[in-house]
Amino acid sequence: MTATKTGELTALARQLRVDSVRAAAAAGSGHPTSSMSAADLMAVLLAHHLRYDFERPEHPGNDRFILSKGHASPLLYSAYKAAGAINETELLTYRRLGSRLEGHPTPRRLPWVEVATGSLGQGLPVGVGMALSGKRLERIGYRVWVLCGDSELTEGSVWEAAEHAGCEHLDNLTAIVDVNRLGQRGPTRHGWDLDAYARRFQAFGWHTIKVDGHDVDDIDRAYAEARSTLGQPTAILARTVKGKGVESVQNREGLHGKPLPDAEEAIEELGGVHDVRVEVQSPPAARMLHAVRSGHLELPRFETGDKVATRDAYGQALAALGTARDDVVALDGEVSDSTRSEFFAKEHPERFFECYIAEQQMVAAAVGLAARGWVPYASTFAAFFTRAYDFIRMASISGADINLAGSHAGVAIGADGPSQMGLEDLAMFRAVHDSTVLYPCDANQTAHLVAAMAEQRGVSYLRTSRGEMPVLYGPGEEFPVGGSKVLRMSDADRLTVVAAGVTVHEALAASRLLEREGIPVRVIDLYSVKPVDRRTLRTAAERTGCLLTVEDHRPEGGLGDAVMDAFVDGAPVPRVVRLAVRTMPGSAAPEEQLHAEGIDAESIAAAVRLLVEQAVVR
Amino acid sequence: MTATKTGELTALARQLRVDSVRAAAAAGSGHPTSSMSAADLMAVLLAHHLRYDFERPEHPGNDRFILSKGHASPLLYSAYKAAGAINETELLTYRRLGSRLEGHPTPRRLPWVEVATGSLGQGLPVGVGMALSGKRLERIGYRVWVLCGDSELTEGSVWEAAEHAGCEHLDNLTAIVDVNRLGQRGPTRHGWDLDAYARRFQAFGWHTIKVDGHDVDDIDRAYAEARSTLGQPTAILARTVKGKGVESVQNREGLHGKPLPDAEEAIEELGGVHDVRVEVQSPPAARMLHAVRSGHLELPRFETGDKVATRDAYGQALAALGTARDDVVALDGEVSDSTRSEFFAKEHPERFFECYIAEQQMVAAAVGLAARGWVPYASTFAAFFTRAYDFIRMASISGADINLAGSHAGVAIGADGPSQMGLEDLAMFRAVHDSTVLYPCDANQTAHLVAAMAEQRGVSYLRTSRGEMPVLYGPGEEFPVGGSKVLRMSDADRLTVVAAGVTVHEALAASRLLEREGIPVRVIDLYSVKPVDRRTLRTAAERTGCLLTVEDHRPEGGLGDAVMDAFVDGAPVPRVVRLAVRTMPGSAAPEEQLHAEGIDAESIAAAVRLLVEQAVVR
Repeated sequence: MTATKTGELTALARQLRVDSVRAAAAAGSGHPTSSMSAADLMAVLLAHHLRYDFERPEHPGNDRFILSKGHASPLLYSAYKAAGAINETELLTYRRLGSRLEGHPTPRRLPWVEVATGSLGQGLPVGVGMALSGKRLERIGYRVWVLCGDSELTEGSVWEAAEHAGCEHLDNLTAIVDVNRLGQRGPTRHGWDLDAYARRFQAFGWHTIKVDGHDVDDIDRAYAEARSTLGQPTAILARTVKGKGVESVQNREGLHGKPLPDAEEAIEELGGVHDVRVEVQSPPAARMLHAVRSGHLELPRFETGDKVATRDAYGQALAALGTARDDVVALDGEVSDSTRSEFFAKEHPERFFECYIAEQQMVAAAVGLAARGWVPYASTFAAFFTRAYDFIRMASISGADINLAGSHAGVAIGADGPSQMGLEDLAMFRAVHDSTVLYPCDANQTAHLVAAMAEQRGVSYLRTSRGEMPVLYGPGEEFPVGGSKVLRMSDADRLTVVAAGVTVHEALAASRLLEREGIPVRVIDLYSVKPVDRRTLRTAAERTGCLLTVEDHRPEGGLGDAVMDAFVDGAPVPRVVRLAVRTMPGSAAPEEQLHAEGIDAESIAAAVRLLVEQAVVR
Repeated sequence: MTATKTGELTALARQLRVDSVRAAAAAGSGHPTSSMSAADLMAVLLAHHLRYDFERPEHPGNDRFILSKGHASPLLYSAYKAAGAINETELLTYRRLGSRLEGHPTPRRLPWVEVATGSLGQGLPVGVGMALSGKRLERIGYRVWVLCGDSELTEGSVWEAAEHAGCEHLDNLTAIVDVNRLGQRGPTRHGWDLDAYARRFQAFGWHTIKVDGHDVDDIDRAYAEARSTLGQPTAILARTVKGKGVESVQNREGLHGKPLPDAEEAIEELGGVHDVRVEVQSPPAARMLHAVRSGHLELPRFETGDKVATRDAYGQALAALGTARDDVVALDGEVSDSTRSEFFAKEHPERFFECYIAEQQMVAAAVGLAARGWVPYASTFAAFFTRAYDFIRMASISGADINLAGSHAGVAIGADGPSQMGLEDLAMFRAVHDSTVLYPCDANQTAHLVAAMAEQRGVSYLRTSRGEMPVLYGPGEEFPVGGSKVLRMSDADRLTVVAAGVTVHEALAASRLLEREGIPVRVIDLYSVKPVDRRTLRTAAERTGCLLTVEDHRPEGGLGDAVMDAFVDGAPVPRVVRLAVRTMPGSAAPEEQLHAEGIDAESIAAAVRLLVEQAVVR
């Protein structure tokens, strides 16, 4: 059918409800009532407004649809079935082992899903990233439709998105809010007070439309109005009923996330099972996603011995990468003068996105841009990526290829104090599935790693430092991800010092001190914290018997723990001693901070001497 | 002086500017220009409106002042000096090693600081927690004043706070926004458009007042209006000039976070150094903070062998703790029916705070409540605490004693899929300074740990599980923080399986399987993930030579890494094998998930057999 008439739209919506009930019943779990409230909204969108080629999900002209209320996945999958993308049999595999139809939709498994949802308040910020791509970069007329729940509007990230979209005049973005009045545990703050939501969106510069979310004609007019609104994003606030259509469950508390008590009866009440199909409009012809010009990469070159901050090298390398590759974009959280992403911004302003102090929106925009084929680099202080950890975690579920650079790592920043020090970032990023975690100690190494990140899959993280450090490596040196550098070694080494970033320089200084005392030590620069260079670490362990790890990070989850990744398969484990940041630092000069935490050259040398005296080492 | 007249207020403000310039000059770093914009706002507050006894910072009637723009610390310390709380000499120790006057203020070192700031967008949410305490619990007439920057209003957490305060009618809360138009790297989105901010706050139910932030009479009237406004929190939007008072720096870009180029000249331009003092009004007499009735604690008791979810035990134990102690409060992020904090809410509704889906605001409110002497327990899904990681990190800098409980840990939740699975939470919480991380495997253990958390300092985290598990321990058993339980041991043990939570049950089942095959293994329940029971782990290592760790968490930063904490002082390290969640799970039943990740009984047994065959173990 081509659902053009009220009756046909209503029949389609009814079928989406029936199929939602069936999927959840087959699974024995899921959120049918949250699906039923939004069925009319979905039916009208699918039949009249979405332009999408299900056979070509990669079509550049396709509209983008994000189910921000990801728990309403039965509705999404029922829509896929109505559009002919999946069949009846697959629908009923919902939530089973091996099924593509997960409890919350994920793009790795289903080609029509733009981004993983299920942590609330993330769909709109990611949608902003896609809308920015459409408007500023691709310049294709696709629209981004985001179906939100009312409960999730309490998440601050939604208002970061509202602010960004409003100020950027993203009129290609529509938020559809399914105001069904009931959250998981009970009523929302505002119930059916659509005006409460309208006031908030309007204050952030949005056009708003209030509708009866079960009146298909009303909905139809609202979508048309959203499409024709210029200069502003639109929020459609739809009054709906949770569990709509089934008397025994509708508008009742205590039924969130549960299959209907009597599915068969409910299906009958909803009109029974029919094979209602919908013809989704095709997108207009569009150029393939930005023809990427990949030119010759001229990385910045630094002279060994010069003093350069790795954050400076980051900025310069990123600018160079942007010159070589048209698909590289950069984002920053209002600290580009500190992270040095300003170097990129100056050379490639059209591909730079200022996100102001809104780290959640920044990472979400990176995810949205990555979903559209861009290679994003987003930067802020290492400490402030903690603000976006949920988005980073969800990005890995999406399988998004994003690059994040955290500056001002560790106590080495000096006087600004602990609020500005990234001291948990390695732990946070190491725990992300399939992540890459890099921590360079010099400018040439940084430049090469910035370039390497563009080739990595998943979430990649680069940790940079505030202060200047001597350039150790020549510009021609290679730094493979998963590698390390042995900076000092001899057959007589009594132990191995494993360091990264600022502590590499301290470890080298300690080794020179110790050398003079007749205590040779091996020094490894473990710039690839994840994956870790197992072979080099194991060789060092075999030869020297003891590893002393030194890191400008908390003792948990950082470099010391990363070193252990080389020894968790039952192989012999060396003795290990760990130096890390164990107090709550205050303000002090960088060198005072390193000394106070026992991670400077003097402290490393003292630790080695103690181990020698105690005969822990050979 | 008692600054009652315009001229006197202006003189005080000028002196605050002078002292801010001097402090930053002495330090050679800091944010004087961000201090100078807010000097008039601070002067009028201090002289006319704040009620605060600097000699008794613990006075229950004291107003609360939070410098949300924590980088403007020179202004705060200059105000302390004007109030006679610190002297000239100390002011000039700003940002030096050992000084109490850190780059960003911290309460651990300065008794008048309510909460650590420096990560922007946190002051207002914490202020909401204090205002809730004042209004709902303490019922004392103190006001909470929060001085915010304009740049930080882009953080979503500010709008979570705006929503919470507006809906709770917190008329004891005032946000003072220093709209100086310039962020760190350049102009803000809205510049001096005070209406843009006013519209946003009004939409969230706030009363707003626009003022010239350098007109002390205008400011004075605004504070008086805020104090007399009933039923709504007030936002004072003050148009100010960054670097106000010094021609060469005021309203200029590129001068954020830098001492003035010529401090002496600037001081002269500002009128020179004077010893202007202000008499801050005393608070009215007030009862001491809630007389805490500490009654007999009757923890719930569970029968061994019964099947109970640890989240159920959490809810029951928390309710019991709330009955025994009047100072225990609970918060939840709209999932109390899942986390089971609803049990507390039902018994102690007056001490339960529904935070809706706003995890940043929830943790911030816990910090604010803890600062007022309450013992908060805040709960949501383990996965969703990632949303609040920056707040958790800052809570540890504040030295706040807060308890957080994350439910639905790991793949064991089953069909809901990865977005709902806490798989990085142990890594995240272990890396927090001085944190306590607990992960019980049975109901009685859970109950005891919930009670123990109330006695812990700093950030304590409890990880609970969705599914039912057999009760292993009797209700009388003790579970000290930092301990563990050896559940199975013999002199013939070939290796030790270290587990926690759901994997304890899998490890026990594996040990029974292996026992029948003549392979005895030791089983340790490592319920205290941090601090870790070094002695028991070291004994097991000595006796059995190999540790097999099994966790429903990512391989990085969790149980496996925690076990290594027992072996990082150069002592001999056992062989280690680590089983953890290594794929991206989809939807499946709980037992299918555990099997797919290789952390169920069968997989554990298979790993042990392999190690025996490879002769890795004895």
